[in-house]
Amino acid sequence: QSTEKTVAPKKWYEKISIRGYAQVRYNRLLETNEKLKCEQCDRSWGENGGFFIRRGRVIISGDVSERLYIYVQPDFASNVSGSFQHALQIRDAYFDLALDAKKEYRLRFGQSKVPYGFENMQSSQNRLSLDRADPTNSPVSNERDLGVFFYWAPAKIRERFAYLVSSGLKGSGDYGVFALGFYNGQNSNRTEANNEPHVVSRVTYPFQLKNGQIIETSLQAYTGKYVIEKNTKNKATVSDFIDRRVGATVVVYPQPLGFQAEYNVGQGPQFNPETMTTEVRNLHGGYAQVMWRQKVNDNFVTPFIKYQYYNGGKKHEIDARSYLVKDLEIGAEWQLKNYFEFTATYTISNRTYEDANLPDNHQIGNLLRLQAQFNF
Amino acid sequence: QSTEKTVAPKKWYEKISIRGYAQVRYNRLLETNEKLKCEQCDRSWGENGGFFIRRGRVIISGDVSERLYIYVQPDFASNVSGSFQHALQIRDAYFDLALDAKKEYRLRFGQSKVPYGFENMQSSQNRLSLDRADPTNSPVSNERDLGVFFYWAPAKIRERFAYLVSSGLKGSGDYGVFALGFYNGQNSNRTEANNEPHVVSRVTYPFQLKNGQIIETSLQAYTGKYVIEKNTKNKATVSDFIDRRVGATVVVYPQPLGFQAEYNVGQGPQFNPETMTTEVRNLHGGYAQVMWRQKVNDNFVTPFIKYQYYNGGKKHEIDARSYLVKDLEIGAEWQLKNYFEFTATYTISNRTYEDANLPDNHQIGNLLRLQAQFNF
Amino acid sequence: QSTEKTVAPKKWYEKISIRGYAQVRYNRLLETNEKLKCEQCDRSWGENGGFFIRRGRVIISGDVSERLYIYVQPDFASNVSGSFQHALQIRDAYFDLALDAKKEYRLRFGQSKVPYGFENMQSSQNRLSLDRADPTNSPVSNERDLGVFFYWAPAKIRERFAYLVSSGLKGSGDYGVFALGFYNGQNSNRTEANNEPHVVSRVTYPFQLKNGQIIETSLQAYTGKYVIEKNTKNKATVSDFIDRRVGATVVVYPQPLGFQAEYNVGQGPQFNPETMTTEVRNLHGGYAQVMWRQKVNDNFVTPFIKYQYYNGGKKHEIDARSYLVKDLEIGAEWQLKNYFEFTATYTISNRTYEDANLPDNHQIGNLLRLQAQFNF
Repeated sequence: QSTEKTVAPKKWYEKISIRGYAQVRYNRLLETNEKLKCEQCDRSWGENGGFFIRRGRVIISGDVSERLYIYVQPDFASNVSGSFQHALQIRDAYFDLALDAKKEYRLRFGQSKVPYGFENMQSSQNRLSLDRADPTNSPVSNERDLGVFFYWAPAKIRERFAYLVSSGLKGSGDYGVFALGFYNGQNSNRTEANNEPHVVSRVTYPFQLKNGQIIETSLQAYTGKYVIEKNTKNKATVSDFIDRRVGATVVVYPQPLGFQAEYNVGQGPQFNPETMTTEVRNLHGGYAQVMWRQKVNDNFVTPFIKYQYYNGGKKHEIDARSYLVKDLEIGAEWQLKNYFEFTATYTISNRTYEDANLPDNHQIGNLLRLQAQFNF
Repeated sequence: QSTEKTVAPKKWYEKISIRGYAQVRYNRLLETNEKLKCEQCDRSWGENGGFFIRRGRVIISGDVSERLYIYVQPDFASNVSGSFQHALQIRDAYFDLALDAKKEYRLRFGQSKVPYGFENMQSSQNRLSLDRADPTNSPVSNERDLGVFFYWAPAKIRERFAYLVSSGLKGSGDYGVFALGFYNGQNSNRTEANNEPHVVSRVTYPFQLKNGQIIETSLQAYTGKYVIEKNTKNKATVSDFIDRRVGATVVVYPQPLGFQAEYNVGQGPQFNPETMTTEVRNLHGGYAQVMWRQKVNDNFVTPFIKYQYYNGGKKHEIDARSYLVKDLEIGAEWQLKNYFEFTATYTISNRTYEDANLPDNHQIGNLLRLQAQFNF
Repeated sequence: QSTEKTVAPKKWYEKISIRGYAQVRYNRLLETNEKLKCEQCDRSWGENGGFFIRRGRVIISGDVSERLYIYVQPDFASNVSGSFQHALQIRDAYFDLALDAKKEYRLRFGQSKVPYGFENMQSSQNRLSLDRADPTNSPVSNERDLGVFFYWAPAKIRERFAYLVSSGLKGSGDYGVFALGFYNGQNSNRTEANNEPHVVSRVTYPFQLKNGQIIETSLQAYTGKYVIEKNTKNKATVSDFIDRRVGATVVVYPQPLGFQAEYNVGQGPQFNPETMTTEVRNLHGGYAQVMWRQKVNDNFVTPFIKYQYYNGGKKHEIDARSYLVKDLEIGAEWQLKNYFEFTATYTISNRTYEDANLPDNHQIGNLLRLQAQFNF
């Protein structure tokens, strides 16, 4: 048998694979205040909410040649309007060109996650809490943007990133040990609105202790200018604002006790209800979470507790709506083999969110949140 | 050879399959009244209509594990606006968790057909007439909604449901012998608009006679509250209305002579042109169809005749538009193996449909309707 | 072994295949005039442009039975609005019924390319210049429409059409030696707006010289009526206009020196800034391109130079915007095996484009345009 015999070219279905997941939710049980809502988290919170598909994802991905990896992820729960829900819209559409044979150096083109924050990089398929925390998700609503990104990670660490996902430890996937990106900066699925790209950089490292425990720490920062949308009542005369942040992360993977915390500070547009105008203000906030990953027969149960605090604007909401958030979540995820997960969270929420239309709005309330997740 | 040898895990393409169908139509031949239209049926009826893709479906489905079946069906003929047609939007996105190994008891999560009516459950890929009848389709426009559904059917009857489709007898598929569901109630792809879910239940049974003839009978009912959209000319002061119906079905499968009839009564919002307001009114209507399934060489020709009557409102149309419908259809479907179907129908239509904008509107007319269907 | 043994039915993934490509662009380098834009070409030209996914395509296609070929191509870079980009929308959804076993005679149903012009038929995956030329693309914006098309080509020429693509010579694919079509005429993904279909016909032939050089020449023409959109300032009292053209094509395939030219004349709606009204006017224009296809190691580099001229209206833009275009492009495509292409073009542009809102608008400028293309 010759080693030089020609290899049959791969079939399309050996190069590309299709998989996905979906999250069906109901948020209306044990609700104490139907006026309490969270636009960024889940539009089915509160008044007139009902059954809701929060995410429906179909992922087309694969190593389509020795140097090109593709990842195209439409979401099928995107809403054009209240009467045109469940449209298909891209979340990710990126194309990785490996610069070396070991794929330690990669250039990524297209729409993909902006490398800022651990929880942002971690897939919603894996996250314990139903929604990402406001302080670290507000800089990159929907986590993604369109641009060019450079990633570097040694092959050994690439394997560790892969293990942290495949093992069920809920890692972030491989966004490099070092990352540098240029992107439009108006968040995913929105047209660029000024002439300057944003710049982001991130350094992360998953240290493995002698006892096997893995601890990951990261630093990240970005800067750019953001164009906001305004209500007619907003007295601001400009729309283009400074938008920059720096953040730190620590993750102790749940083997079985885990801990996760992120914090960031920066500057950005924020509505000021006293002057009825949007202006650049300092912002800061973070979250901390403790979790315990328990095997029960063949399955896993992971109770967790998470607290978040955020004081700043949300640039992607009307007027760069002002926020003061103090939320506590107590929940548990029950994972049935690899195909079904059920999560219940009791949320104790205290939110002030104000814009030109609603310049005085402080809501306090509790609710039970339920999610069934299906993996395929 | 050991029986304990490990089985290779299934490849993604063995767990998930992709198939679909599309319907291309032309409705403008032998047309006697271009003002006669049917918004719910087919937007290419009448004035300014042309070639039209009524449905374009791609179905991603499969038993992705021993207890989870998924079904994700985007439509690629969904229209955001007149200048943004052929968007992809979900019709079905449901996830069946089997509660027992024989899958007799199932919980379905997500957007899927509301178990109300035989013609609603039957796929458009299989239906003879081009559109569903107004009296039984008006309660569940687009047939679907978002919620949680329970289905039960004995394994033997599950097989019979499957046979009724695979044999070409145009069955409904398996929506249980008994069904119970909770869903938002604003119809598919629309946000919930009040705080109450709808409730639906259905019992159906396909009896097999000794001569092999199969006859299916069903009872179904639902109740809830529906929030309508209104023209500015509408004098109604509320938008939230009672919405409830009960219906009966009988289907004699075409072996080769078939008969199919459904009837339902209920209450719901209906525009009243005399008071220029929408109010709760009684509604009723049904349809009856006779068909003959004839084998011609390897293919099938199925002529049919169908009459429908509906007197009531359509809650999902502006003002809960008032309807009085008396339509007769005479047509035939020609089926070429399993991949192509051509249907021609001569429609004799008599429709009164009135809203605040057009409070006096009675249209009578005939037309020839043509459809080419492609299955893949 | 019997030759009559039953053949296992093909699996779905043997009948249907999935492939695609994507183009990521950046147009803002060496830009001399940020007011210079081209709506039809690329919305990321000029002011506030940034990184941009010009095309993202996933193609589901296959011979699903002996006589039916399907081709469903969603684009995932379609923009409902500035804040809802990257929606999935159909480009092609067509279904070919072969009328004979050799598939020389075909009927095509659905949305597909209107057989008018070589560059229109050629896939953007293969084209050298980043955008199609205005004079020959303006009759069929997005190249496609919805209708029924008849194609005929002898089997030998069908093979030649296939070779012209597979060889990398950038052919058009097989749109018949003779084509005849009936279609709505409002361009793809727009509803028909009058009661008359458009009619198109095309004859093309790829001559093969004794030295192997292939030269293709074509004639094409269409006629119909088009309904335009108008600004409120437009004084035109009608919206429905004559729309007809005739064009000629010559293509000398790059073996290695190539030449390509198309020209067309016709009549159609065009905004007149002097009378502030849209009226039927004569239009004419074309383009010529010279290219050289050079093998460098395993890969290909293809420098090209292209000039286009267009004097007429663009019916699919507001008011049937008036155009006078004189553009020169000097560029090169670098093709890395079959999965990656990088194109750089220096564009020297001179464009007058006027509508009721901007009745005096002449822009001159140069810019560097960059595109990374990924094939999968």
